[in-house]
Amino acid sequence: MKLAEIYMQFQSDINIIEKELEETVQAKNDVLQEAATQLLRAGGKRIRPVFVLLAARFGQYDINNLKHIAVPLELIHMGSLVHDDVIDDAELRRGKKTIKSQWDNRVAMYTGDFIFGKALETSTFFANPQIHQILSNAMVEMCLGEIEQIKDQYNWGQNFRVYLRRIKRKTALLIAVSCELGALAANADRDIQRNLYQFGYNVGMSFQITDDVLDFVGTEEQLGKPAGGDLRQGNVTLPALYAMHYDTDIKQLIKEMLSTNYPEDIDVSPILEAIKNSGGIEYSISISDQYLEKANEALERLPDTKEKTYLREIAAYIGKRKF
Amino acid sequence: MKLAEIYMQFQSDINIIEKELEETVQAKNDVLQEAATQLLRAGGKRIRPVFVLLAARFGQYDINNLKHIAVPLELIHMGSLVHDDVIDDAELRRGKKTIKSQWDNRVAMYTGDFIFGKALETSTFFANPQIHQILSNAMVEMCLGEIEQIKDQYNWGQNFRVYLRRIKRKTALLIAVSCELGALAANADRDIQRNLYQFGYNVGMSFQITDDVLDFVGTEEQLGKPAGGDLRQGNVTLPALYAMHYDTDIKQLIKEMLSTNYPEDIDVSPILEAIKNSGGIEYSISISDQYLEKANEALERLPDTKEKTYLREIAAYIGKRKF
Repeated sequence: MKLAEIYMQFQSDINIIEKELEETVQAKNDVLQEAATQLLRAGGKRIRPVFVLLAARFGQYDINNLKHIAVPLELIHMGSLVHDDVIDDAELRRGKKTIKSQWDNRVAMYTGDFIFGKALETSTFFANPQIHQILSNAMVEMCLGEIEQIKDQYNWGQNFRVYLRRIKRKTALLIAVSCELGALAANADRDIQRNLYQFGYNVGMSFQITDDVLDFVGTEEQLGKPAGGDLRQGNVTLPALYAMHYDTDIKQLIKEMLSTNYPEDIDVSPILEAIKNSGGIEYSISISDQYLEKANEALERLPDTKEKTYLREIAAYIGKRKF
Repeated sequence: MKLAEIYMQFQSDINIIEKELEETVQAKNDVLQEAATQLLRAGGKRIRPVFVLLAARFGQYDINNLKHIAVPLELIHMGSLVHDDVIDDAELRRGKKTIKSQWDNRVAMYTGDFIFGKALETSTFFANPQIHQILSNAMVEMCLGEIEQIKDQYNWGQNFRVYLRRIKRKTALLIAVSCELGALAANADRDIQRNLYQFGYNVGMSFQITDDVLDFVGTEEQLGKPAGGDLRQGNVTLPALYAMHYDTDIKQLIKEMLSTNYPEDIDVSPILEAIKNSGGIEYSISISDQYLEKANEALERLPDTKEKTYLREIAAYIGKRKF
């Protein structure tokens, strides 16, 4: 079954979530309203809400409960994108102007704060403190991931472990808790919650590694921005780490080129080529595949249902996507 | 009884909260740890925690419960200061370097996010969803207040109502919910909670108006920064609103002086003088006094206890303070 068909199965519930998202970010303030709505309409795969819905099928599925956890998860994701764009000084996201570029950093900061606040307000629907603990802990960890990314920028000496911890915090954790909280909100067994968390964590790791690979090998058309963006911004990801680890010449080349005053203006294509030729891409794909395999192992421990098949399809898609 | 004596009555519990604050912002990340700890140690009156403790005396007082609400309230306040300093481009706060000046805007943004996240994590101690609703709603409203402050900057045509709504969101609401949540966490009667909210709201309004007056009449020594800072940054507060409303010459003067490209460099003392001579200071003080009176009316509806006397003392101090 293709991804589009899986989405179609849940179309009416995704629409409910979409409507709830729009209503949640309503604000009387024009700038805030416009910024938040623009962000919502920019789209995105709504992968976190979809994981919530799929996970909830392993318990008592009720969209009127679930929307109160799907919405905050998507909003936390969105809020973090807005703040990321401030950090990365990004002008475009998905081919559209970012909030910080259309307005300014100040508006972007408070739009993010507002969205985080609204996320938490929505989740107060649930009396179960465990849900709030998981959600607020995910927010804290995401901040730690972001602030470590700042710290590790242009740090060419970092190791693989540091990279993996950072992408766990930045990406994998929120996907993991989307799966976990879907099951928890539907009162699924604790074991099912745990396995879904494991599934989400491993899919999330694979997702981010694939993202980082695509930044090297994707075309400008596929990426919506030129390749090599991570490198230019000093974000050291797995392909570069591998290349530098096994080839000190490449390490030297990268250090020299990017130690100029305006690294964003330089032509990084020689570095991109060197990294592509180092085996770093293949290595990264193999690590991504290992995470996918672990995701599937976690799935195996779940009851055999059609949702389990869907989750396997989504995992395969995420690991293999080309854009 | 003097303010210091009231604090002394609660010293051991304030120490417990202080310790909990320090532990809550512990982070393995050096920058974050240092930034958050520096922020904590910079001090502050911890007025929100003190209100929590005093309010809780009207119910079943248990510091081991209360610290889980006092800490998030203080942290939300602190997080908002960090983000404010980004917006205001402030170099100093309480005579010390701000996070955005010691590190940069990016670190300040994520330190704020981290502190907000930790605040929410702490509050998950409580199973009562009402507590979470009140807390997250306060965060959302504070964001709205901040983003409106951006919108209203250099808007010399705004009216008194807009100003009052802004300071409610920016300041009064968090003080109101500190009082309310202290009572709620201690299971005080709903009526008591409501009156304490009313008390806190009115004290908070008086507090912010007094702050705004001091920015005109305080000395550099009292303020820790030169007078007229609000005006230079385009923050239109009550004394200026009054002066502009009743004297179109002053309005013209302000508009002309601050429409230059670098309003922060100009000498605002002629405007300060004009506003001081307009009666705007006296008017603002009278409005502040009206709020204080309403705060005391709310107190009257509470049972006669020594904490009621303390709250009255604190209110009087806040309304009359000179720095």
